[in-house]
Amino acid sequence: VGTTGGIDLAVVAGDGIGTEVVEQGLSVLEAALAPSGTKLSTTEFDLGARRWHATGETLTDEDLEKIKGHDAILLGAIGDPSVPSGVLERGLLLKLRFALDHYVNLRPTKLYEGVSSPLANPGEIDFVVVREGTEGPYVGNGGALRVGTPHEIATEVSVNTAFGVERVVRDAFARASARERKHLTLVHKHNVLVHAGHLWRRTVEKVNAEFPDVTTDYAHVDAATIYLTTNPSRFDVIVTDNLFGDILTDQAAAITGGIGLAASANINPDRTAPSMFEPVHGSAPDIAGQGKADPTATILSVALLLDHLGFAAESARVQGAVAADLAARGDAVRTTDQVGRDIAARVTE
Amino acid sequence: VGTTGGIDLAVVAGDGIGTEVVEQGLSVLEAALAPSGTKLSTTEFDLGARRWHATGETLTDEDLEKIKGHDAILLGAIGDPSVPSGVLERGLLLKLRFALDHYVNLRPTKLYEGVSSPLANPGEIDFVVVREGTEGPYVGNGGALRVGTPHEIATEVSVNTAFGVERVVRDAFARASARERKHLTLVHKHNVLVHAGHLWRRTVEKVNAEFPDVTTDYAHVDAATIYLTTNPSRFDVIVTDNLFGDILTDQAAAITGGIGLAASANINPDRTAPSMFEPVHGSAPDIAGQGKADPTATILSVALLLDHLGFAAESARVQGAVAADLAARGDAVRTTDQVGRDIAARVTE
Ligand SMILES: CC(C)[C@H](C(=O)O)[C@@H](O)C(=O)O
Ligand SMILES: CC(C)[C@H](C(=O)O)[C@@H](O)C(=O)O
Repeated sequence: VGTTGGIDLAVVAGDGIGTEVVEQGLSVLEAALAPSGTKLSTTEFDLGARRWHATGETLTDEDLEKIKGHDAILLGAIGDPSVPSGVLERGLLLKLRFALDHYVNLRPTKLYEGVSSPLANPGEIDFVVVREGTEGPYVGNGGALRVGTPHEIATEVSVNTAFGVERVVRDAFARASARERKHLTLVHKHNVLVHAGHLWRRTVEKVNAEFPDVTTDYAHVDAATIYLTTNPSRFDVIVTDNLFGDILTDQAAAITGGIGLAASANINPDRTAPSMFEPVHGSAPDIAGQGKADPTATILSVALLLDHLGFAAESARVQGAVAADLAARGDAVRTTDQVGRDIAARVTE
Repeated sequence: VGTTGGIDLAVVAGDGIGTEVVEQGLSVLEAALAPSGTKLSTTEFDLGARRWHATGETLTDEDLEKIKGHDAILLGAIGDPSVPSGVLERGLLLKLRFALDHYVNLRPTKLYEGVSSPLANPGEIDFVVVREGTEGPYVGNGGALRVGTPHEIATEVSVNTAFGVERVVRDAFARASARERKHLTLVHKHNVLVHAGHLWRRTVEKVNAEFPDVTTDYAHVDAATIYLTTNPSRFDVIVTDNLFGDILTDQAAAITGGIGLAASANINPDRTAPSMFEPVHGSAPDIAGQGKADPTATILSVALLLDHLGFAAESARVQGAVAADLAARGDAVRTTDQVGRDIAARVTE
C-alpha cells in the first residue's frame, strides 16, 4: 500500500456534520493501525459548500489529479441547503464516483445486537447491497427543453451497458460466493424497464455459470421494499442498479437502526484509482456543529477501507469494537467525540 | 352515469387470483348499489395470459374501443410466469393506463383498526399517494443496441412534461386541500435527476399559489423510504412520479398490513375515458384457485370506483363495512368468498 509503505489517505470532510464524523473516523483508523506501526498520512481536500461559495468550484481537474495519487479516500458528507440542489451532488460527489470508476457501491446492512429496529419482528438482518455506481439514471444523460414554459419537457436517461452491468454482477457473485448463504438477489423492474431489466437479468444468468455455488432469485424493486419490511432475513447479497440501490439502502439503513449506522464503500475493484469510503447519511445541517452526530457510520466505513487496503485483521478489530460499543450503548446520550473515543479505546484494548 | 341510468362496468378479471377477488368485488358493489335501485351491467373482457397464449393478443384496438364505452373498469390482476416479462404489463395493463389517460394513480394508505403493522410503533397512518400514471420511466421510451453482445447498451428514458406534471400536481393539491391536514409532500430525487426533478419542484411551487391553504414539503425518494419506516404519520398527501410512486406504494402497503389490503384507482380526472380500479397486488399464481386470496383490496378499490362515479354515500358504506370487518377479523382464516360475503353482509346491514 502506498509508496511510503504506509497509507496515503485523501480526506474530504465536506459539509455539515462531515467534519465531526471524519475526525472520529480518523482517530479510530489511527488506533487500528498503531499496533502494526503502519504510518497514516492524510491530505485534506477543501471541497464542498464552503469552497463552492468562495470560488464557484466543485472539483477541479487539479483536485482530481491530486486525489488520484492517494491510496483511498475518506469522505464525510457533501451538501448544504445554501447550494442549489444538484450542484455539489453532481459536480462533486457523483463526479468522484464516476471519475474514479467506483462501479461497486457496497452497502452492508446488519442489525447489531443492542440496536433496536423500527420493525416489530426484524429477525436476523445481515445482507449486503452491491449497488452499481457508474451507470443507470445517475449518468447525467438527459435534458430539458422550453424550460419554464407550458411546453417544457425534461428527460432523464438510464444508461446500462453489458460492460458495466457484467462487472458489477460478477463482483456481487464473488461476494455471495464468499458468504455462508451464497445467495444473490437481483432487484430491478424488468416488467416495465424491459430493455435495461432484461440486460441485468441475462447478465445474472450468464455470470451464474461462473459461480455455480451461488443460488439466485429476483425481486421487482417495489416488491423488494415489501420484503425489507416483512422479511429482510431473506436477503444475503442484493445486486441492483444505481437508483434502485440508492432507494433500497436507505430503507435498509432504516430497518437496522438508521443512517447513523450505515456505512458504504465506493469501490474500484480494478484498483485503477482510489476507492472512497463514506457514511450513507448526508451533511445534516440541522445538527451540524453541535457534537450530536453519530460517527458510527463513518467508523464502519473506515472498517471497509481497512479491509479494502488489505488490513483484514484491523478491519475486524474496528468492526468488533463498534459491535461491542453498540451492544453496550443503551439509552445513554454521548457526544460525537465520546462515541469516537469509546470505540477507539475498544480498538486499542 | 351511463346512458342506461345505471353503471356500465367493464370487468377485466385477468390472471391468477384476479378472477376470485373480482367476483367478491362485484358482489359487494351490487350490495352497495341495491338500496338505490341503481342497475349494474357488466361486460367481461377476456384479457391476460389465457388470451395471449390462445391468440397472441394483449389488447386490440377493438378491445380498447369497447372498453371506452363503459363508465368504469374493474380490474383484478394481470400477469403470469408463463408469459415473458413485460408482455402483459406493457401490452395490456400499462397500455390501458396510458390509452385511457389515467394520469392520477391514486393509492390511499391507511392503517385500519384491527390490522397489525410490521412496524413496532406505526402511529396513525392515513395518507394518500398521488402517483403520476402516464409519464416518467414508464413511457416505454428507450431501447437496446447490440443485444447479447459484450457491447450491448440498453437505455430507459424518463419523459416528464410541464403539461403532464402540472395536471397531476394540481389534482394532488386539490386532494390535499380537501383533507384535514392539508399537507402535500413532493417526493423525487432532484439532486440527481436534476432536469425532471426541477420541473416537478417548480411545478409544485407554482401550483401552490392556487392552493395557499396547503402546506408543502419535499423528500428525496431514498429519504421517503426512511420516513415510511420511522414516521409514516408525517405524510398526508404524497405526489410523485410513476416509478417512485410504484416503489413507495408497495412499501406503504407493507406497513399497513400488506398488499392484500391496498386499493388503487387509475383516474382520468377529465373524464375523457373510463377510470380503472384495481388492487395493488398482482396475480399471485402461487395461491390462485385456492380461495386463499384476500379480496379486501379489490373491495376497497370498488369503494374508490363508487366515489369516482358520484356514489359517495355508497362508497362510504363499503369503506365502513371493510373497516368493521377488519376490526373484527382477529386470527380467523376465511376463504376469499367468506370475506366477500361477510363484507357484503355488512354493506347490506
Ligand atoms: C447525495 C446523493 C447524490 C447520494 C446518491 O443518491 O447516491 C446519496 O443519497 C447516497 O446514497 O450516497
Ligand atoms: C405490474 C406493474 C406493471 C405495475 C406497475 O409497475 O405499475 C404494478 O407494480 C403496480 O404498482 O400497479
